[in-house]
Amino acid sequence: MFRHVVCLQWVPGTPADRHDAVVAALRTLPARIPEIRSYTVGSDAHVNSGNHDVVVVADFDDVAGYIVYRDHPDHQAVIAEHIKPILAARAAVQHEL
Amino acid sequence: MFRHVVCLQWVPGTPADRHDAVVAALRTLPARIPEIRSYTVGSDAHVNSGNHDVVVVADFDDVAGYIVYRDHPDHQAVIAEHIKPILAARAAVQHEL
Repeated sequence: MFRHVVCLQWVPGTPADRHDAVVAALRTLPARIPEIRSYTVGSDAHVNSGNHDVVVVADFDDVAGYIVYRDHPDHQAVIAEHIKPILAARAAVQHEL
Repeated sequence: MFRHVVCLQWVPGTPADRHDAVVAALRTLPARIPEIRSYTVGSDAHVNSGNHDVVVVADFDDVAGYIVYRDHPDHQAVIAEHIKPILAARAAVQHEL
């Protein structure tokens, strides 16, 4: 298996509905991209301060499956329309699982 | 379930053995902290540029289990001895799973 993890942090003052729109849009992707084997999208629980706002943990059979997801037009549309306009910081790691 | 995700990035020039020591030290924690239900530590595969270097995805029964892990002396020792000396950036999210 091959895992992709990304943490996203929004610009200060981002309204909750913009956050919710990102989460909802990301959650449409497993139904559209069959290479996704497991996909969780979580909103930070505010247990700690200084956290990012959203995390995605996505598992694929192999790196090729991840690349299909990364470059998929539906994924790129979510990034362009929902994520980039409110993105302040991003941290990602991909690794063999 | 309750999930903790953290991405860590090292200062430029960090030797590989310091990275490997972090990964090895983190992987000792599930045997020491029974509240951990699932624990993966991954080193970035260098598929993309600009990534962080390590990611931990840890699952617990609930937020209380995560807090035990967060504050556990063995975890804090790994952070103090292995992580903090080479840490450039950190991104974390905790969320209900």
